[in-house]
This record gives sequence, structure tokens and C-alpha cells, in this order.
Amino acid sequence: MKIGIIGLGLIGGSLGLALKNIKFISSTCGFDHNLSHCEEALRLGLVDEIVSFDEIKKCDMIFLAIPVEAIINVLQNLTNIPKDTTIVDLGSTKEKIINSVPKEIRANFIAAHPMAGTEKFGPSAAIENLYHDNIVVLCNMDESGDKHKNRAIQIFSHIGMKIVFMNAVEHDKHASFISHLPHALSYALANSVMGEEEPKSILLLAGGGFKDMSRIAKSSPLMWTDIFKQNRKNLLNSIELFQKELNKCKTIVKEEKWEELEKWMGNATTLHKIL
Amino acid sequence: MKIGIIGLGLIGGSLGLALKNIKFISSTCGFDHNLSHCEEALRLGLVDEIVSFDEIKKCDMIFLAIPVEAIINVLQNLTNIPKDTTIVDLGSTKEKIINSVPKEIRANFIAAHPMAGTEKFGPSAAIENLYHDNIVVLCNMDESGDKHKNRAIQIFSHIGMKIVFMNAVEHDKHASFISHLPHALSYALANSVMGEEEPKSILLLAGGGFKDMSRIAKSSPLMWTDIFKQNRKNLLNSIELFQKELNKCKTIVKEEKWEELEKWMGNATTLHKIL
Repeated sequence: MKIGIIGLGLIGGSLGLALKNIKFISSTCGFDHNLSHCEEALRLGLVDEIVSFDEIKKCDMIFLAIPVEAIINVLQNLTNIPKDTTIVDLGSTKEKIINSVPKEIRANFIAAHPMAGTEKFGPSAAIENLYHDNIVVLCNMDESGDKHKNRAIQIFSHIGMKIVFMNAVEHDKHASFISHLPHALSYALANSVMGEEEPKSILLLAGGGFKDMSRIAKSSPLMWTDIFKQNRKNLLNSIELFQKELNKCKTIVKEEKWEELEKWMGNATTLHKIL
Repeated sequence: MKIGIIGLGLIGGSLGLALKNIKFISSTCGFDHNLSHCEEALRLGLVDEIVSFDEIKKCDMIFLAIPVEAIINVLQNLTNIPKDTTIVDLGSTKEKIINSVPKEIRANFIAAHPMAGTEKFGPSAAIENLYHDNIVVLCNMDESGDKHKNRAIQIFSHIGMKIVFMNAVEHDKHASFISHLPHALSYALANSVMGEEEPKSILLLAGGGFKDMSRIAKSSPLMWTDIFKQNRKNLLNSIELFQKELNKCKTIVKEEKWEELEKWMGNATTLHKIL
């Protein structure tokens, strides 16, 4: 089986690396509109060869590892693929992407969200074990053809991922809490500190807690603007729920109700019984 | 030199472990009002022996590794120590603690904040390299006696810490951004998810970003209530500045100003040029 990867950054490049050791994959090829990314990906051995967009359509499976708005655009140019070709999108939002899939290729299409990533991006960010032991969410699979479902499940399990099936609407709601809201908070925390008079003196004191909380504020603004755009309603809802919680904390501290504060914090710690 | 540690949890226990390999330290002893902590600390070898509160006063140096409100209480019971005894507090807030030090022992007293910790607590959380390569802030050192200053600097540098001198007022402001606000955000994020109908389904999707953002929401509510109490004004101020940033993000998303969002995120990423 020949695999094509569109987008050779962290997600696509890491996929290329992970696929190297899978016996039923004969070769991988890549396409990226950024030529320096193509050169870098080849040099780093992320894919076997770089091909044209037309050439990539001849692959058995095509993975879309590009920003979520670009996924919607590219899908419109994939309507003339062979019946047996599988297309897998790896975007962080699912409902808008699924709704944008042209009818003629809906059966070929698999909507996947691997819950894996780092704050880094570009081909040099690619790492072989990015996906290993992480969750991949597959959405609205009853609309995908059996052959394509099986291929996707096979590939994701071979790179070590744990498969979860979910409705796209539900996925987007959950993802707004688990991923999109945390990014908004991390960016806002970074901007709060950068807005102070002496960010350097403040950051000198940064320990593990702050570093963890601000790590994802390093993520690509281009990519995350697209995600916020596509999951706008759910994101706004989760931001509002968060604001209520933070306001609760602020009011308790303002009113010096320390027993209540300890209870509020204690409730938060219960999360780790599930996580 | 004989070292006494009051409080044998993560902070005190890790200090005990780190001091083991220092040649000029003859022995370490510990005191904790929680008897099971004492037993556990001995079993784990965090200190050489467990002693009474009166006995610990005979040490050359006494470290206070207890919640910040308890530090203030204990200091009132240390007024009768010998002139040569050094007291070092390891609390996360500095101004209120320094103001509470009885005059007769002010010269003996060193206000230190090691910027190190994990979300775990109790003797079993102690790790030998907790302090290594991290910052320790020493506050208002001109009010401490030379002998005591030198001893503290010597010890902290021997356990691998990088020393920063700072005014307590400034420390508390910076600490509210770098440590106390992140804890409030992490607790609020955890509570937002726990307030949803199906926290389990949401948390099933948790990747590295969410795990990092919620990690410190596991921290001890008892300890953190004390910290929020002592640094109340700075914390409220930093929460308000954060709320403005998050509101800015919400408004941009609501009004679908995507270029502005990318710019806002881009500004946040500049933090990592300093960090």
C-alpha cells in the first residue's frame, strides 16, 4: 500500500516517521505547498519522496495533515480520485470538515483526530513516537465505506493509537474543553505576563507549573486561528463556563471565604481521579 | 553543621534528601506534627532522625517547610533560639511572613522561596533532585545577619540552586503571575470540566496539552488556600489582568476578527523568546 501525506509539518512528518516500520506499507510520498518544508522533510527522511498534488492522488491512502481551513479547500480538489482511494483528515475539528466533504467522495473519507501534538511545528518538529499510546477519535464512521474504515483502523492501531468512535458534534464539544479552551487560556496567560512592565523579571522565576501552563502558547497562531474559527460556538461556550469558575474563585478570595476556597480547590483535585 | 527540618512533605523531605551528600552537614533531623509523616520520612530516609520541637531548636539551621500560615505561627515559638541559629522559611509568599518575624530573631531569619515543586505532596512525594538547577529567591537579605546569609547561600548553591535576590513586595507580585495565578487557572479549568455532564467522556480525549494545564490542579488545597490568603491582593490583581486578556480573546472570536486573533496569539508566542 502506498501512502501520500499532504502537509509535512509536526503531524504529517511524525506520521511519515511512524509509518516507516509497518510491513504492509510499500512507500510514502509527501506534498507540501511550502518548498523548503519539502526539502527539509526529504532530508529528515519523513517520507520516501516528494511528489506533485496530481501524483499524490494515485496513492492508496491520502492523509491531510494541514490546517483545518486548508483541509476544506483541498477536499474540493480531490473529487476525481479512484473509488478505492482512502482520504483521512487529521484536523482538530470535525463537524465543519465532515459537512464540507463533496458527496462523491464521502464514502472514501475518514474523519480522524489524533489527540497528540506538541507546541512545535514544521518538519523539524516531527517525532517518530508522537502517536504511540495516544487516543485517536474517529467520527461519523457510518458514513465511510467499509474498506476505508478498515484501512484507517489498521493504520492507526499499527502506529500504536487507541481508537475511540464518536459523533462529530460530540467530538467538537469535548475537544473545545480538552484542547481548544486550554490553548485560549495558555495564550491569555502568556499575554497577561507580556503585558506587565517587566516580563523578564517575572519570567526569571518561572518554575515547572508556569512552564507547563504556558507551553502550548508557543503553538502556531495560523493553525490555531483556523481551529478557533471552525469550533467557534463550542469554544465560546467553554470559555464562558471557565470564566464562571474563575469568577467564583475571585469572589471567594475577595470575600476571604477560605473554607469555601479549600472546598473549591478540593473539587478540582477530583479530576485526577478520572484522568 | 546540624540541620533541622520542620515539615517533612514534598519540600522538607526533598531538602533532606538533597542535603545527604553535602560534606559540611553532619546530620539532619526532622519534626512534623503528623506522626505518620514522621514514620514515613524515617522509613524513606528523608532525615537521619525524628526529634521533638524543643530538640530541633538546638540545630544550627532550621528550615520551615510547612504551609505559609503555619510558618507565621511557628516563628512566634522560635524566639528563644541561640544567637547563632539560622532560620530559613521556604514558603511561597514572602511579605506577610517577613512582617511576622519577631524582632528578636529577625537577624537569624532568611526568607527564601525555592521555585521548585510538583503537584504531589507528603513525604512520599519527596525527590532528591527537586531543587537542582532551579531558582531560589532570597528576599530582604539586608535585614538578615551576615553569618545567616552566608550559610543560606552556601546550602542553596550546594543543592544546585540558582540564587536571585529580590524585594519581598516585588517577589509577591511576580509570584502571583508566575505561580499563584497559574494555580487558580488550573483549578478553574479542572472545575469547568468536572461541572460538565460527562467529564469521563471529555477526559478520555485528554492529550498532553490538557494534562499539562491541569497537572497543578492536583496540588494540596490546604497549602494553596494559605498562599492565596497571604498573597490575596496580588492574586486578585493578576486574575483581573488575565480576565481582561481572556475577554479580549472571547470578543475577537465572537466578532470573528480572525486576523486580530492570529495577532493576539502571535503576541503570546513571544513569551517563549524570553522563557
